Amino acid sequence: MKQNRVDRVLCALGNMGLTQMLIVDPMSIYYLTGVYVAPFERFYGLYLRSDGNHVLFLNRLFTVPEDVQVEKVWYSDTDAVMEIVAGYMDQESPLGVDKDLRAVFLLSLMEMQAAKGFVNASIAVDETRGVKDEEEQEKMRASSHINDLAMERFKKLIHEGITEKEAADQMLNIYKELGADGFSFEPLVAFGANAADPHHAPDDTVVRPGDAVLFDVGCIKDGYCSDMTRTFYFQKVSETHQQIYETVRMANEIAISLVRPGVQLCSLDKAARSLIEKQGYGPNFTHRLGHFIGLGEHEYGDVSSTNTRKAEAGMIFSIEPGIYLTGDTGVRVEDLVLVTEDGCEVLNHYSKELEIIG
Amino acid sequence: MKQNRVDRVLCALGNMGLTQMLIVDPMSIYYLTGVYVAPFERFYGLYLRSDGNHVLFLNRLFTVPEDVQVEKVWYSDTDAVMEIVAGYMDQESPLGVDKDLRAVFLLSLMEMQAAKGFVNASIAVDETRGVKDEEEQEKMRASSHINDLAMERFKKLIHEGITEKEAADQMLNIYKELGADGFSFEPLVAFGANAADPHHAPDDTVVRPGDAVLFDVGCIKDGYCSDMTRTFYFQKVSETHQQIYETVRMANEIAISLVRPGVQLCSLDKAARSLIEKQGYGPNFTHRLGHFIGLGEHEYGDVSSTNTRKAEAGMIFSIEPGIYLTGDTGVRVEDLVLVTEDGCEVLNHYSKELEIIG
Repeated sequence: MKQNRVDRVLCALGNMGLTQMLIVDPMSIYYLTGVYVAPFERFYGLYLRSDGNHVLFLNRLFTVPEDVQVEKVWYSDTDAVMEIVAGYMDQESPLGVDKDLRAVFLLSLMEMQAAKGFVNASIAVDETRGVKDEEEQEKMRASSHINDLAMERFKKLIHEGITEKEAADQMLNIYKELGADGFSFEPLVAFGANAADPHHAPDDTVVRPGDAVLFDVGCIKDGYCSDMTRTFYFQKVSETHQQIYETVRMANEIAISLVRPGVQLCSLDKAARSLIEKQGYGPNFTHRLGHFIGLGEHEYGDVSSTNTRKAEAGMIFSIEPGIYLTGDTGVRVEDLVLVTEDGCEVLNHYSKELEIIG
Repeated sequence: MKQNRVDRVLCALGNMGLTQMLIVDPMSIYYLTGVYVAPFERFYGLYLRSDGNHVLFLNRLFTVPEDVQVEKVWYSDTDAVMEIVAGYMDQESPLGVDKDLRAVFLLSLMEMQAAKGFVNASIAVDETRGVKDEEEQEKMRASSHINDLAMERFKKLIHEGITEKEAADQMLNIYKELGADGFSFEPLVAFGANAADPHHAPDDTVVRPGDAVLFDVGCIKDGYCSDMTRTFYFQKVSETHQQIYETVRMANEIAISLVRPGVQLCSLDKAARSLIEKQGYGPNFTHRLGHFIGLGEHEYGDVSSTNTRKAEAGMIFSIEPGIYLTGDTGVRVEDLVLVTEDGCEVLNHYSKELEIIG
């Protein structure tokens, strides 16, 4: 068990008036125990108690290291697993449940009245995970460093006649050659008007002169995710597209310049959005400014117009303004930032100058 | 909308006394509407009603084809999405909920009393999905055909000095060359004693003469999954390992020979297990005989000692007995079978004869 992290979660639960919680997010369990299991449809849970009698529920098919210092309860596919789980719970107290607990398990615990009420208590884990400790910060730096090196190579993949899919298909090998363990998410490669869809999946579109070439890419290294977007132009760029690019880049940089402990996350979104609005593209910035990231590529917490939470040293999130013009083009410039004691450290070092490639 | 499939689900809901259901599994929504979205942490749901006024809830960031004939309700990241969803529900009737509905959304609907009680109604969708229609059967054949061709090439990857990871890393390209869209799950490559772990992840283990070489692999083609296991031997095989192999192969074949409409799924598990028990390896067959498969690589429904459900024409599931000897070896032989009117069609055609490779 990572005792320091467990203690932070228990403290947060105590502040919510809770003495017990059932955690099911495999990443959260890994964060707290060092054990990682991909449970697929089977139940897998870490039951935390304020008295320290924590229990890890495992299917006999899962493989975990023997030296993990937590009580393990094993079940088989033929066992009524939720009855076993319910047997460990304090029926007289409310149970904090993970936001990801599936209805099949939650409705079953409710039917058995396994606890005195059920509340979504994920915030206790998620806010703890949102503030990275030293070990995590180091791993996040290493993951983003690989991403910087990869971007340099991705850019060089683009030549006359190549399709988005052909470029995307080469990315996993490049990441692996650079020492990454895999993608943190499927790479997004978008040419020209396809870049106007923030979630575009690489297809058979061929790159054309004047196209925006948008890469939204990330890898996993030692469990931690990177995530960066750069937008290049193939062979040439129109004046309008150049202006749009510079607007997005400035929005990215102005938001980053404001990151420090105590600043409200919504004010970062506002700063970037105001700049884009002043250029007349307000309605074309269709998403929030950023999201938290760590063991998961999208973790709890965002940098949006409604999140009044204040930045704290140790938080890591993306700053990714964009402008999307349907049928025409799209631009996004994204970095990860680590909040420090007196400002922030940008984890990505790949240039944000407008660059013509190919 | 795939009206025929929707009608089958509504009929099953009616049999459960339900007039409304909230479906959130993206694969189930794809199955019923033809729309696929990967929602990540955002809410995405199809609300089915017996009066036909179905609603698809979508985040503005999702991209879906315009011609889908279902009412679409769009929300933004800054909206209170569950309030919007609750507004469409019939508060006076119980709501069927998807087993995958996350606690964060379910607890919120409960708090708003969006319906008169909440029940896990996934079985209505899952049992419908469990019986494949003609279009699906054809796609499942195509996916398994690619898997057969891939196995032939995977086998040839194994040579002196290669590690499990090095073999696994080449598999995605082979699948893509053969026309697959990707993996249906991360390939499992296990040499020697590693094969004793049914869920072993490929590592740096080097193959040695006499090792079992176990491939549990599958691809996706047009949305449908294949899944097959073959166990080869590198350069030579001991007499004991050969006997174990033949036991597993016979267990696979005896179970397949019994598949026909009306047979209880548990009796298939029993037939395979009895044969393995008679050879003295009962405790070493540590998992159920099989699982359902289709759009998902593990779908609802299994072939286990406790599933008394009867096979129906159109069902597709795996038959995958195994024997696992910790520290020594492991064998699994897995095929997918499609239940037909008078027996079954085995979707895999790769030989099950013991084969020495390398």
